[in-house]
Amino acid sequence: MFKKILIANRGEIALRVIRTCKEMGIKTVAIYSSADRDSLHVRFADEAVCVGPAASSDSYLNIANIMAAVEITNADAIHPGYGFLAENAHFAEICTEYNVKFIGPTPEQINKMGDKITAKDTMIKAGVPVVPGSDGLVKDFKTAQKICEEVGYPVMLKATAGGGGKGMRLVWKEADLQAALEAAQKEAKAAFGNDGMYIEKFVEEPRHVEIQIAGDQYGRVCHLSERECSIQRRHQKLVEESPSPFLTDELREAMGQAAIKAGEAINYEGVGTVEFLVDKHRNFYFMEMNTRIQVEHTVTEEVVDYDLIAEQIKIAMGERISGENYYPQMHAIECRINAEDVYHDFRPSAGKIKSFHSPKGHGVRVDTHVYSGYNIPPYYDSMIAKLICRARTREECIAKMRRALDEFVVEGVHTTVPFHRQLMDNEDFIKGNFTTKFLETFELKPAQPKKKKRGH
Amino acid sequence: MFKKILIANRGEIALRVIRTCKEMGIKTVAIYSSADRDSLHVRFADEAVCVGPAASSDSYLNIANIMAAVEITNADAIHPGYGFLAENAHFAEICTEYNVKFIGPTPEQINKMGDKITAKDTMIKAGVPVVPGSDGLVKDFKTAQKICEEVGYPVMLKATAGGGGKGMRLVWKEADLQAALEAAQKEAKAAFGNDGMYIEKFVEEPRHVEIQIAGDQYGRVCHLSERECSIQRRHQKLVEESPSPFLTDELREAMGQAAIKAGEAINYEGVGTVEFLVDKHRNFYFMEMNTRIQVEHTVTEEVVDYDLIAEQIKIAMGERISGENYYPQMHAIECRINAEDVYHDFRPSAGKIKSFHSPKGHGVRVDTHVYSGYNIPPYYDSMIAKLICRARTREECIAKMRRALDEFVVEGVHTTVPFHRQLMDNEDFIKGNFTTKFLETFELKPAQPKKKKRGH
Repeated sequence: MFKKILIANRGEIALRVIRTCKEMGIKTVAIYSSADRDSLHVRFADEAVCVGPAASSDSYLNIANIMAAVEITNADAIHPGYGFLAENAHFAEICTEYNVKFIGPTPEQINKMGDKITAKDTMIKAGVPVVPGSDGLVKDFKTAQKICEEVGYPVMLKATAGGGGKGMRLVWKEADLQAALEAAQKEAKAAFGNDGMYIEKFVEEPRHVEIQIAGDQYGRVCHLSERECSIQRRHQKLVEESPSPFLTDELREAMGQAAIKAGEAINYEGVGTVEFLVDKHRNFYFMEMNTRIQVEHTVTEEVVDYDLIAEQIKIAMGERISGENYYPQMHAIECRINAEDVYHDFRPSAGKIKSFHSPKGHGVRVDTHVYSGYNIPPYYDSMIAKLICRARTREECIAKMRRALDEFVVEGVHTTVPFHRQLMDNEDFIKGNFTTKFLETFELKPAQPKKKKRGH
Repeated sequence: MFKKILIANRGEIALRVIRTCKEMGIKTVAIYSSADRDSLHVRFADEAVCVGPAASSDSYLNIANIMAAVEITNADAIHPGYGFLAENAHFAEICTEYNVKFIGPTPEQINKMGDKITAKDTMIKAGVPVVPGSDGLVKDFKTAQKICEEVGYPVMLKATAGGGGKGMRLVWKEADLQAALEAAQKEAKAAFGNDGMYIEKFVEEPRHVEIQIAGDQYGRVCHLSERECSIQRRHQKLVEESPSPFLTDELREAMGQAAIKAGEAINYEGVGTVEFLVDKHRNFYFMEMNTRIQVEHTVTEEVVDYDLIAEQIKIAMGERISGENYYPQMHAIECRINAEDVYHDFRPSAGKIKSFHSPKGHGVRVDTHVYSGYNIPPYYDSMIAKLICRARTREECIAKMRRALDEFVVEGVHTTVPFHRQLMDNEDFIKGNFTTKFLETFELKPAQPKKKKRGH
């Protein structure tokens, strides 16, 4: 049983971990940079230690100072949250050396999934589907032809030195292959001085669907179903939900079992997420595994009614999991409320929050570290709150999210609230008809001031 | 389908109803007294009408002004909330005359349950257990002896003119009856000039356990299990929870079926609550029925995952219920946060809330109409928020409530937070070992300032 946990993070996730620790009767130590003195995670922890100046590299990534804080406070475990040192195998190793428990997987497990090539190889061996393609470079047309036949059309030709779409060609049928290959090689040669090409199956209408897993120290792994995360802007998730409107029960189980295999292949210890791409034919392919808690773990919590941070801590203390899998009992959606100006290319909007009123009531959860008067420092990421709604159906959940967004008042900085509010009215979103490309064509309407009749 | 609902109430319940209406796509009209101009229910409704000055009798109870507001705004239904006109059969009748739907039972149903003697008679006929006793006054010792034998000891002798405990005697066995009766009669005669006595079975170690029911317009009634409400101060509930730690599955079902019988006996339409006393032997007795939504409906919502206000509105629109009963899937506790000074006999503490920070995160719900800067008017009841926690077990729920109460910051006025925080540490409360008498002996400890280590 841990007596005291140091949280090596900031913001809402630090507060999130503190809350669960309090509920479990475990003392907490907050660390903070000089820019975060007035943050709620500092206020609500039992102890708080300043680990350096504002820049992350000097504070939240400053392993020496963090380990000094561990020594001073006599913490017996470290929760890394997400980001910062959460997937840093070196940090996990140092924790072991200091005899303080890193709440998460072992350094070996982090490394196995941190290196993309090793991860892919491990998955192939474990029988988890990955995007099929050439094993390395393709030397000539005959080889290309053979590979394309094996993986099936459409395929994507990619220049090994590529970038910015140069040297890429999408090929839908064999008749077009030779011309496309030659053109791509020529383009790559001209752009990068290197015409090396490789081939990948083209994932049609891809969706980002990830499976939450948990594994204990005794080799048992279970899944907690999926999160749909296709609503992304430049690979940054903005909205997550569970269950995915696209998954069938069969696909959920197949992906769940694949994720369990992924976890078992590395004897995974802790909670983690296996990210997949799902194409329009409902084929799914391993993308990567995140060996930590994710921002969007909350939607899983809301639909399976478990506290995932508590599970993480219990696993780190050596508790066994039952091995049972968990399935969504409700529908939950999360909107990430970022301090960004959605009308100016989502540029960060730091500064002082003059007024902060979060929505409340039935089925509404808000995780946030900010409050009226809080100064958003410009040094860290722009997320200021997570708004999660739960309801019996997706339709009711969207309706609840609309009213919750209408209730959300943040004055002094711009936020993503107007974006989310419009998304909740988008017909394709409502129908569950969207892919990872959705936001590329989503057009934001100008903001409309609300009218109110009063004082009849 | 209602297009527009006028909410004839204020405070958190008005806001609660507005939220559900928004989620259902129904427009809302708030009414307010001049003292409530800055309340959130006014801000969040689509329209708002001032119905009079601060005093309730001139505004929230002013039927003429409320009906004028209905006419002006063209609302097609009225939600009465709880308190004020919620159980006023006359008001429900006027609604019918004005051709506006009263969201609740019919005037006849309200009357049948509003009059205690009629209600008791109706229950006896329906086969719902009531506290047994004499049918009216007891003329002599022989009759008393016979009645006591029938209802079983212990019994309570009560003076019909009684009050303040005068002319009351608790009798544990027959041998003591005659002396007790004579003494009580003598005392009553001296105190009130009237020695008329009646007899009731004494309910040993009573608990207040109530059953939530719902009935549609077609005679179908279901139950949604119980709420334990024994933590009361002078008959005011302070804490409610579901499930009750005292109920067995058998008792839950027996009480649920009795509550359904009560509803069926009056063809009950809407959501309502049948209140019972449960003694230490797990006998239960009908106390009264509340023909409206209750403050504590929230704990039921959290454990059965239904929106009870939405159910109310759907029933009023003529939707059918399935008839299925609902059982707790989780544990939920509600603490009523009142603006009261718990260290001075819970006296009301009106005034300006300088700072209001409500707890958030996993399993925490807050229903409130106040905010930083809100001025609590002295005219209405003192409840400023409801804090509801849900978790998988009662133990986890209490732990969550502790951390949520620790997070609750209200500056400028006194609140019941310190009372609740101590209650959550009370051994008997934790064991579920309490009756309606619990608070009579509960002793509040002086407040202790929290210490914090910081700035190592």
